[in-house]
Amino acid sequence: MSEPGAAQQAVEAAIVERRERVNEAITDELPIIRPERLYEASRYLLDAGGKRLRPTILLLAAEAIEDVEPYAEDYRAFPSPAGDVDVMSAAVSIEIIQSFTLIHDDIMDDDDMRRGVPSVHNEYDLETAILAGDTLYSKAFESMLETGAPADRSVRALSELATTCTKICEGQAFDIDFEARDAVEPDEYLNMVELKTAVLYAAAASVPAMLLGDDEAVDALYGYGLDIGRAFQIQDDLLDLTTPSEKLGKQRGSDLIEGKKTLVTLHARQNGVDVDGLIDADNVEAVDESDIEEALAELRDAGSIEYARETAHDLIASGKQNLEVLPDNESRDLLGGIADYLVERDY
Amino acid sequence: MSEPGAAQQAVEAAIVERRERVNEAITDELPIIRPERLYEASRYLLDAGGKRLRPTILLLAAEAIEDVEPYAEDYRAFPSPAGDVDVMSAAVSIEIIQSFTLIHDDIMDDDDMRRGVPSVHNEYDLETAILAGDTLYSKAFESMLETGAPADRSVRALSELATTCTKICEGQAFDIDFEARDAVEPDEYLNMVELKTAVLYAAAASVPAMLLGDDEAVDALYGYGLDIGRAFQIQDDLLDLTTPSEKLGKQRGSDLIEGKKTLVTLHARQNGVDVDGLIDADNVEAVDESDIEEALAELRDAGSIEYARETAHDLIASGKQNLEVLPDNESRDLLGGIADYLVERDY
Repeated sequence: MSEPGAAQQAVEAAIVERRERVNEAITDELPIIRPERLYEASRYLLDAGGKRLRPTILLLAAEAIEDVEPYAEDYRAFPSPAGDVDVMSAAVSIEIIQSFTLIHDDIMDDDDMRRGVPSVHNEYDLETAILAGDTLYSKAFESMLETGAPADRSVRALSELATTCTKICEGQAFDIDFEARDAVEPDEYLNMVELKTAVLYAAAASVPAMLLGDDEAVDALYGYGLDIGRAFQIQDDLLDLTTPSEKLGKQRGSDLIEGKKTLVTLHARQNGVDVDGLIDADNVEAVDESDIEEALAELRDAGSIEYARETAHDLIASGKQNLEVLPDNESRDLLGGIADYLVERDY
Repeated sequence: MSEPGAAQQAVEAAIVERRERVNEAITDELPIIRPERLYEASRYLLDAGGKRLRPTILLLAAEAIEDVEPYAEDYRAFPSPAGDVDVMSAAVSIEIIQSFTLIHDDIMDDDDMRRGVPSVHNEYDLETAILAGDTLYSKAFESMLETGAPADRSVRALSELATTCTKICEGQAFDIDFEARDAVEPDEYLNMVELKTAVLYAAAASVPAMLLGDDEAVDALYGYGLDIGRAFQIQDDLLDLTTPSEKLGKQRGSDLIEGKKTLVTLHARQNGVDVDGLIDADNVEAVDESDIEEALAELRDAGSIEYARETAHDLIASGKQNLEVLPDNESRDLLGGIADYLVERDY
């Protein structure tokens, strides 16, 4: 990677600063109460880390919409023409949904590690992990109900949250289905990614516009979230191939090992690569970094890495264009910077 | 059981008639769309049967509050002073939540059968069952968002739904925790039942009052639901002991076999019965009806069956008293009749 420029530094600082506030708010919204084991398990992944990208996007979108200086206003009583709104509750709600899906996905995908720590069903047990996810699910709705926004705006945000969750489940179902299929079209894959991953970015970006009553911004921010969310997933797929396990917090190349379809492997298959033969399926336990390196070289030769990178970059460009309806301010620039960051990050 | 009287027949007819309408509405709200396997799994238990007691209570409460003739009004456009409300959407929402909890509970409790058919994780697989439950979860919120009630009333109902779900999870966590503990006080047990089971009855009964804007009825109907919900669970525990497996749709005595705490076994333990020795723990696979009969006789001798029955009946009496704030009409009588039915039913 090249030396980060001033713009990228500003983006990273904006993420770090907001992350701290989001983390405080998560502790407030999800205290460890009885039954303690349930709430500890519910908090476990949230406490283990995470960049809080989605809540950061939500808070920045609120600041961009109302055209206020970054951090000038209290996120818990964010000024809007129709009265103060607790946009932090909405931000926490989105992060809680993300955490619920990780817990249940790790069970479904039988993943042992997440964020460098054991997954919840591994650290606790299956029952507790299912229940912790279910608890976070309703807690996310409780949190979204605490914004203090006018009732009609709350209803709109809650409706977005509910349909987003349904779509995430549909996306996960398609993802599981794809594993068992030989042929998946890149378009089918991108539709799955939209459902499984991008709609939560779209919700994060558009919910503040709903709560603050800026109808024009709702669609634009939704489009921004959808584009950058798809790009984020494609970058995640690339990082799974290119980032050392230690930095990744889980086994490098796990998607290849598990036979997951990604934009990279779908492109490679269409271009004659024997994707199933890239990793010796009879010996997945003994896969090491050199096996992954060899597979990566073959995917690179087929142009599949470049294809995925270009697709992600095109989506980022499209996502940033959506921001043009917002007032020209620092927060809008940071939203654009986050879009770039999503495909430039190396972990 | 004695010959059912006219009142009981009227209650059963009211349940059966509303059940048909609820079933139609469930089909409308949850069509089998892509990804089909996910939606088929989501519908599987709903289609397998169920008395639809909670949605029936919700619909009757709406009729009692507005003091209209049973079935005189369209549940999809139920008249209220602030405009028509689709109370059927709310009824379906509550039933969907119930179904989601059954699917996930069956995984957690490792139950193979439900409603006479394989449990969802047994019929499909673990992944699909987790995901079907998660899908129903958000679908319930979507359904509750479709009532067309004024936004402030919708928000109140959604808030009730969210906190209800959180409590159900807490109750299930306590229930799992109790299995591993020797000593559980009856009060702890009743608190667990309130969370795990009764709050959904309370939501079913009180949500129509929220949607229709009858503030006085909200608390009374909530209390009614809480009381009869606890009584329902106690009766369920009794039926697990006394109903043949065939009629029950699952192994008779499964709570005893699994070492589940119930009001019956907690009372028995306090009165000197060796509850853990009632079923030969080394041989649970070979437990037959005669083993359960012997265990039942011992519990009866200790007065534990009678104690549980009396507790349930006291709760029913208390629940019915709550109905007195409602207008005196046929629907209110039916709500009282359902309360009686819950502890008189034999399956």
